[in-house]
Amino acid sequence: MADIPARTELAVTTGPIRGSRKIHVEGPGGIRVAMREIVLEASANEPPLRVYDCSGPYTDPKARIDIMAGLPELRRDWIRGRGDVAEVAQREVRPEDNGLKGPDRSAGVDPFPHVRKQVLRAKPGANVSQMHYARRGIITPEMHYVAIRENAGRAELHEKLVRDGEDFGASIPDYVTAEFVRDEVARGRAIIPSNINHPESEPMAIGRNFLVKINANIGNSAVASDVAAEVDKMVWSIRWGADTVMDLSTGRNIHDTREWILRNSPVPIGTVPIYQALEKVGGVAEDLTWEVFRDTLIEQAEQGVDYFTIHAGVRLPYIPMTAKRVTGIVSRGGSIMAKWCLAHHKESFLYERFDEITEIMKAYDVAYSLGDGLRPGSIADANDEAQFSELATLGELTKRAWAQDVQVMIEGPGHVPMHKIKVNMEKQLEACGEAPFYTLGPLTTDIAPGYDHITSGIGAAMIGWFGCAMLCYVTPKEHLGLPDRDDVKVGVVTYKLAAHAADLAKGHPAAKLRDDALSRARFDFRWRDQFHLSLDPDTAELYHDQTLPAEGAKTAHFCSMCGPKFCSMKISAEVREFATKQNAAADTFLAANPQLAEDEAEAGMAEMSKVFRETGSELYMGAGDREHD
Amino acid sequence: MADIPARTELAVTTGPIRGSRKIHVEGPGGIRVAMREIVLEASANEPPLRVYDCSGPYTDPKARIDIMAGLPELRRDWIRGRGDVAEVAQREVRPEDNGLKGPDRSAGVDPFPHVRKQVLRAKPGANVSQMHYARRGIITPEMHYVAIRENAGRAELHEKLVRDGEDFGASIPDYVTAEFVRDEVARGRAIIPSNINHPESEPMAIGRNFLVKINANIGNSAVASDVAAEVDKMVWSIRWGADTVMDLSTGRNIHDTREWILRNSPVPIGTVPIYQALEKVGGVAEDLTWEVFRDTLIEQAEQGVDYFTIHAGVRLPYIPMTAKRVTGIVSRGGSIMAKWCLAHHKESFLYERFDEITEIMKAYDVAYSLGDGLRPGSIADANDEAQFSELATLGELTKRAWAQDVQVMIEGPGHVPMHKIKVNMEKQLEACGEAPFYTLGPLTTDIAPGYDHITSGIGAAMIGWFGCAMLCYVTPKEHLGLPDRDDVKVGVVTYKLAAHAADLAKGHPAAKLRDDALSRARFDFRWRDQFHLSLDPDTAELYHDQTLPAEGAKTAHFCSMCGPKFCSMKISAEVREFATKQNAAADTFLAANPQLAEDEAEAGMAEMSKVFRETGSELYMGAGDREHD
Repeated sequence: MADIPARTELAVTTGPIRGSRKIHVEGPGGIRVAMREIVLEASANEPPLRVYDCSGPYTDPKARIDIMAGLPELRRDWIRGRGDVAEVAQREVRPEDNGLKGPDRSAGVDPFPHVRKQVLRAKPGANVSQMHYARRGIITPEMHYVAIRENAGRAELHEKLVRDGEDFGASIPDYVTAEFVRDEVARGRAIIPSNINHPESEPMAIGRNFLVKINANIGNSAVASDVAAEVDKMVWSIRWGADTVMDLSTGRNIHDTREWILRNSPVPIGTVPIYQALEKVGGVAEDLTWEVFRDTLIEQAEQGVDYFTIHAGVRLPYIPMTAKRVTGIVSRGGSIMAKWCLAHHKESFLYERFDEITEIMKAYDVAYSLGDGLRPGSIADANDEAQFSELATLGELTKRAWAQDVQVMIEGPGHVPMHKIKVNMEKQLEACGEAPFYTLGPLTTDIAPGYDHITSGIGAAMIGWFGCAMLCYVTPKEHLGLPDRDDVKVGVVTYKLAAHAADLAKGHPAAKLRDDALSRARFDFRWRDQFHLSLDPDTAELYHDQTLPAEGAKTAHFCSMCGPKFCSMKISAEVREFATKQNAAADTFLAANPQLAEDEAEAGMAEMSKVFRETGSELYMGAGDREHD
Repeated sequence: MADIPARTELAVTTGPIRGSRKIHVEGPGGIRVAMREIVLEASANEPPLRVYDCSGPYTDPKARIDIMAGLPELRRDWIRGRGDVAEVAQREVRPEDNGLKGPDRSAGVDPFPHVRKQVLRAKPGANVSQMHYARRGIITPEMHYVAIRENAGRAELHEKLVRDGEDFGASIPDYVTAEFVRDEVARGRAIIPSNINHPESEPMAIGRNFLVKINANIGNSAVASDVAAEVDKMVWSIRWGADTVMDLSTGRNIHDTREWILRNSPVPIGTVPIYQALEKVGGVAEDLTWEVFRDTLIEQAEQGVDYFTIHAGVRLPYIPMTAKRVTGIVSRGGSIMAKWCLAHHKESFLYERFDEITEIMKAYDVAYSLGDGLRPGSIADANDEAQFSELATLGELTKRAWAQDVQVMIEGPGHVPMHKIKVNMEKQLEACGEAPFYTLGPLTTDIAPGYDHITSGIGAAMIGWFGCAMLCYVTPKEHLGLPDRDDVKVGVVTYKLAAHAADLAKGHPAAKLRDDALSRARFDFRWRDQFHLSLDPDTAELYHDQTLPAEGAKTAHFCSMCGPKFCSMKISAEVREFATKQNAAADTFLAANPQLAEDEAEAGMAEMSKVFRETGSELYMGAGDREHD
């Protein structure tokens, strides 16, 4: 703790999101589910709006944050209380785990100071996966937590519930019960990534019948980035709404970077173990072996990684199918395995050893994220034979994983023009028995590097609507460079809005509450409520202030776009008020002149005009609209 | 010309877009159609890629740009050559045209120095609309220009044409002939906005069977902005791809601002005349009269405005339908007319005088952009009774305008969740007889102020795919403040990529050429070609350089995302090379061992493995991929 320089380097952003406060909703067995409440101005006369919260203790002013110590172990007693885990000595860290040749481990990064000597694994013969419990009818605390978490907003709806959407065959309930969560996990339609060695995580579900989730990728590479920046990016990305984070580090310090991230992450962490395995064999794909890979799986499972991308669908016969492609194989994991298969002219050891991998997964409850190593890397290659051949194999592997009660989700493309997106979702549901789909975008055009968060946000919103359970973000730097902090935020917010647009279109029962609350704030000129209800209150307020910085402009009943003379919102308020008066006046008039009822429109015109002029035609004219035209 | 301060203030961005050069394609009657060619590196072994170009002479190094003088009059002889126009004295500019009470005209802006004394209008009884010519079977130079312009890229396809898309009933031809353009204009399915008093404009078409177009809004308000900034924004927005520009100025200097913009604009300019009419009556909606509005139409038609937004569908009976809305009426024009109707309790004079307005439109060839004054301003209000009642009226008005051979497009929403977008397009096509649809977004969620270019870019791409002809951009400042130069660019590029994604999905025959060229450049590590082929080469290169600034990194066969050890692109090249060798080796092997043909896969394995190890397994491993996982 005297390690001041390290602490300074490892600074992360803490404190509440502007306008919000952390709350905890109590559940069965004393569980406390974190949520966020957006507090509105008194004039709104509305209760605070509860929203789903991924940000963990970092936004809780009452929490003591110490990156050097890691987060509290929320799930510790739940995991141990099930009586099916044993403590084992953690595998010794070797130099090659960090990409080093010798014992020097301090290549720019200190190891996490409180590495556990003992870790957990399932007792011999036991299976600790949430799917296994679910299939035996057990509702775990993780499932209770998920149910309460997913219900944010739904509780307030009561009988007001109006379902409006097109869900393409999803089965989104009005209200999520823990039993519903259990059933979805048992059927394989949802996963709760929750490695028993990552007790710091707040349980969350990925599945078509839950809120659409998003993932943020972080990780250093051999050319850039460092551990402090990656921990900061993890905390920063969950602050803005990342539901899971993948650590895609390559190069040096992979093991230590991951330890820092895991011990401080309240969201599930995913990795691509083949990256580290490749580092261990000096970067030579042909030298990869099952033994090195297996060792890496255990190393990472013991650290607490919640899901592994495994490219077991890249089979030898599919590789030549990529030869005619414009962009070949664009997945790193996929290309590593393709190279191995070609070099040995053998079937992939990931495919051949799949059931053995599954044995490891179930001993820690690591979920599969079956990688789409042959996904298209360009519009030209979308939906081709290689891609869909691999998808069929992923479907076969899903069933093999499920045979051992191991949780599975399926990774998807990539680069797909709009008219070819829906069939991806349909084929995935069909081939993989409704296992959750997890796509990268897809990008809907290749011509906008620098804006690929948007080219892909379009595809992400659409496939989320069609049934994709989790959307892997793309940042503005995609195809060009490594994302910095600002890029991470833009990527997360873009994907959060895409996921929300998907929830709205699917008809998620509570999604519209936030849109409506913000729209009411907009109509009422409650500027601060608009900022606070938005996905990014800081940016909304900053943009407002760039044109009208004065503090008074935040309570002004006009805005900079139209100025005080043109204000459609104000005129609308007038229309509304007038309509009320008109109805009252018309009732009076018609009551006194029943013979005129059928001629009301014409007969009442002069009267109405008089009413309007008398009752306030001068009251409102003169404020500012926000929509041009 | 000695007016140095004014010139300095009126600086605009000129010079070629990075990596591109201006070309002119010759057409019938000596017309020269401006296009842009993106020149590729020699190693690409590909011809330059021709792309559609909205940027006008500003990107032509050979053109002499003088904002004080305005652009050359490209269409002057075409217009006069038809023999149906007469010169008339331009209506005298009055102080109230600029929102001033007295004769002082210099409220922060100088008038354009070369205002024309004489302007054009149709000879008595004549109709100078492109639709009128089209219906009489006349192919105008404007139509020839459009045909050549729309064909950029198609000419190179020859027999390689592969149609791949879902066009929802559009009729996009393989190749655009001038006769096709004429026919589309005659049928009302496309418009060529081309006021005879805006001879500086380069003809373009808006219609479902042409490339999807985008519009950028500019304009000052009473609280912010000035003329120099607006001229600069116009030039800046067309540089990045705005096909038309709307000048939505309110407050002072409306007339003079518009003159500066028109005289320097190579793209059609649209306005909302009711804004200026309202200024003329001191901002009091009830005081608006047909005479003031008519005078404003003539004033603007004489200046050369190419299309007018007219909110003639806001009828008295529809106004009470908005009373129950969450956000009432959000269109400024719509709310002004609603207020007028309520105050007088009379039907809208725009609706009552519609045929008289049409008489004015046809005398200058101003196209209608029938405004959706009752469009929804929030997710809650999407697709409601008020919106669709107005749409039915817009359909009725379309037919009335067509009865006089006047060009029409229809404005659309606004705020619409994804599942309610398609029906908007379908109803519009049905109600308005396939007149071009021109939508604002739509925004697919309300919860992301600061990112509404993205919430709306999603909806824009989708409705463009479904058949929307032009997409009105939304900038990041929407709902918050006035867009600055950077916001304008982000808005334009976002909408350009949305329009392109729509063209791809519709199966536009040449759209994919650019995606494929960029993807090939990506696969080949031609970094500069990637930048130059992108919608925004400056940003693409800037982002690349933020991680790897060295000049050498632009020719490096890896990138910063994965560094030199992980490169899926390089491995793919290897796969491709290997597949070729494998095929050759297999042929040789099987020729020598015909009895083994059926056991080829297994029999050849050892052989293949050997070939691979001998022929380059060390050649490529070790460069950097651009896609994570």
